[in-house]
Amino acid sequence: MSVTAPRGFRAAGVAAGLKPSGNPDVAVVVNDGPLDAAAGVFTRNRVQAAPVLWTRQVLADGRARAVVLNSGGANACTGPAGFGDTHATAEHAASLLGIGAGEVTVCSTGLIGVRLPMENLLAGVTRAAGELDGDGGARAAEAIRTTDTVAKMAVRTSTTTPGVTVGGMAKGAAMLAPSLATMLVVITTDAVADAATLADVVREASRVSFERVDSDGCLSTNDTVLLLASGASGVSLPAGELTALVSEVCVDLAQQMLGDAEGSTKTIAITVVGAASEADALEVGRAVARNNLLKCALYGKDPNWGRVLAAVGTTTAVFEPDTLDVSMNGVQVCRAGAPGDDRDLVDLADRRIDILVDLHSGTDEVTIWTNDLTDGYVYENSAYST
Amino acid sequence: MSVTAPRGFRAAGVAAGLKPSGNPDVAVVVNDGPLDAAAGVFTRNRVQAAPVLWTRQVLADGRARAVVLNSGGANACTGPAGFGDTHATAEHAASLLGIGAGEVTVCSTGLIGVRLPMENLLAGVTRAAGELDGDGGARAAEAIRTTDTVAKMAVRTSTTTPGVTVGGMAKGAAMLAPSLATMLVVITTDAVADAATLADVVREASRVSFERVDSDGCLSTNDTVLLLASGASGVSLPAGELTALVSEVCVDLAQQMLGDAEGSTKTIAITVVGAASEADALEVGRAVARNNLLKCALYGKDPNWGRVLAAVGTTTAVFEPDTLDVSMNGVQVCRAGAPGDDRDLVDLADRRIDILVDLHSGTDEVTIWTNDLTDGYVYENSAYST
Repeated sequence: MSVTAPRGFRAAGVAAGLKPSGNPDVAVVVNDGPLDAAAGVFTRNRVQAAPVLWTRQVLADGRARAVVLNSGGANACTGPAGFGDTHATAEHAASLLGIGAGEVTVCSTGLIGVRLPMENLLAGVTRAAGELDGDGGARAAEAIRTTDTVAKMAVRTSTTTPGVTVGGMAKGAAMLAPSLATMLVVITTDAVADAATLADVVREASRVSFERVDSDGCLSTNDTVLLLASGASGVSLPAGELTALVSEVCVDLAQQMLGDAEGSTKTIAITVVGAASEADALEVGRAVARNNLLKCALYGKDPNWGRVLAAVGTTTAVFEPDTLDVSMNGVQVCRAGAPGDDRDLVDLADRRIDILVDLHSGTDEVTIWTNDLTDGYVYENSAYST
Repeated sequence: MSVTAPRGFRAAGVAAGLKPSGNPDVAVVVNDGPLDAAAGVFTRNRVQAAPVLWTRQVLADGRARAVVLNSGGANACTGPAGFGDTHATAEHAASLLGIGAGEVTVCSTGLIGVRLPMENLLAGVTRAAGELDGDGGARAAEAIRTTDTVAKMAVRTSTTTPGVTVGGMAKGAAMLAPSLATMLVVITTDAVADAATLADVVREASRVSFERVDSDGCLSTNDTVLLLASGASGVSLPAGELTALVSEVCVDLAQQMLGDAEGSTKTIAITVVGAASEADALEVGRAVARNNLLKCALYGKDPNWGRVLAAVGTTTAVFEPDTLDVSMNGVQVCRAGAPGDDRDLVDLADRRIDILVDLHSGTDEVTIWTNDLTDGYVYENSAYST
């Protein structure tokens, strides 16, 4: 059910001809209220797509009534004309829904540097607006897929406050910062919440989910996470509880993205412990997650722990090289910066791989998630636009 | 002729059984003087291999008489025992050559985290010491190959000061900072020069050659560039001229490494112009060079300039997104941050690809060199140690 699981939301997904494949490519999500509080988190890339620039403006007042999403084109690096296309999309959706364009957020995903076929897109929005339905969440999730092999959806219901639900959908296999392809996420809830609360919740939930995924270290121009509250349940949750619920949905979606990352055969959890600070643990985790040589080795089921140490050595984190420990799937292959247990004991046959790095410099820890680097990844990304 | 082109140097390369293939894997280079001035530049990785730690100590007094190099094992992350192995290698070579161990530098390359087979290595050093020859440069260059498909050598002779020669050999396809595999370089000259001059020369020459190559963004534990002067020509060059000559050799070797990078099909020059500072130009060049999505696209001969902009956007350089220009092989595919000339005009058939990024924010410029990301790269690096 994804974004329509909470009360107060309708959605639809249609095929508008933006994708050469003819698959669904336009989705609309509407918040019927009574509330229209909204917040978002966006890519930190300084080159931002037109829909990101537009949606940031829309959310400046903490309100949004609708989201229009399209796959089949990112509308990034398209100049003033591309921004005009996003504006026209919002105006068109607003007129169909009887609201203002300033209440319509827009998300796009696909190839950078190409104008959207506006005739197809606007016709698709018209059709989607006519098919909006309280059961349309799955169809909307379907329509935002690009190279995703499956639609990504998650739902959680509060156990302490019956009647409050959080739902979400996502596309991509990625991170808010680095992203494999463009990551778009829409989270909805029927909890009563104001925009300031939602802003805190979406930031914190993203921090511990999407921002801990680092699939290929590439930072997209379009990454967007939106959180909309309808208030249709009539009850509010303590902020901490709403954060926990939204975080659960975000972690679930992030794991689904990792499991479906382009060309991947491994989902790799890099846990850094014994760090002097959370920042140190994050820096080390990211350095390991972005090491192409290690990612190739893991694809080849090769417990090449030397590449982990070589990656740790590039960071500014507090550690001494001769105290580093590294375990792979429970086998401590590196002890005190030197060979430990026999690397032949490491079994890397399963999709899931756990790498543990102990910096022996403090008590902070972080887990960063990534994927392996495969010929499938190279193939998908060399053939993407051709 | 490589390192034996300048007078005052002998070298040898032998097969000692460190490589399973049985190919040459141990080289010795000796400086017969009269001078023994030497300087080096090393990896900035904080996890440094035993031979790097050893050689830094040797060069502390600006003197070295010999270099022992081995492929078939990096002797990195091997703890105090591994350092002892390097020490023993230097002692062994010193006794054979009738010099002190503190005059023998050591370089190793190969798999991290594995002890060297010392019996084979020492026997190889014995044999190499017995075969030292004024024509042995090519054999030494052959013995330091790992995944290199060809030996890398370069020689330049001064045009202004007859009789002064600079020679060099290298292994790897890489950079002093990021490296594809371990990069080892030995440069020799018969010019008269003191250690302080050599230190300046090797630093500056590396800065404009090896440090402008960024093949896969991975930073090795073993990267070493050594510069040895025998003074056998009896004449000295102005420092600027020696720097120019050594830089030419280093650029030549760097280009040979790029042309032979693991699995690569493209050599890509990323020139950043209009930068507010050299640091900005470097940051932007490196960000573009490390973007896996772009590197995959170029492998697929796809002029996906959007991925260039997405990479530029991750930097802190001075620029405005809506003034960026990008050309690929002479076609300005992106103008003012938006689509420019038809991307179908870009011909990416040749190995060499030129990307020009204009930040329109100043007058500094830098060229960074990289390679494409291919299934061949994935294959070589997933099968490396298994």
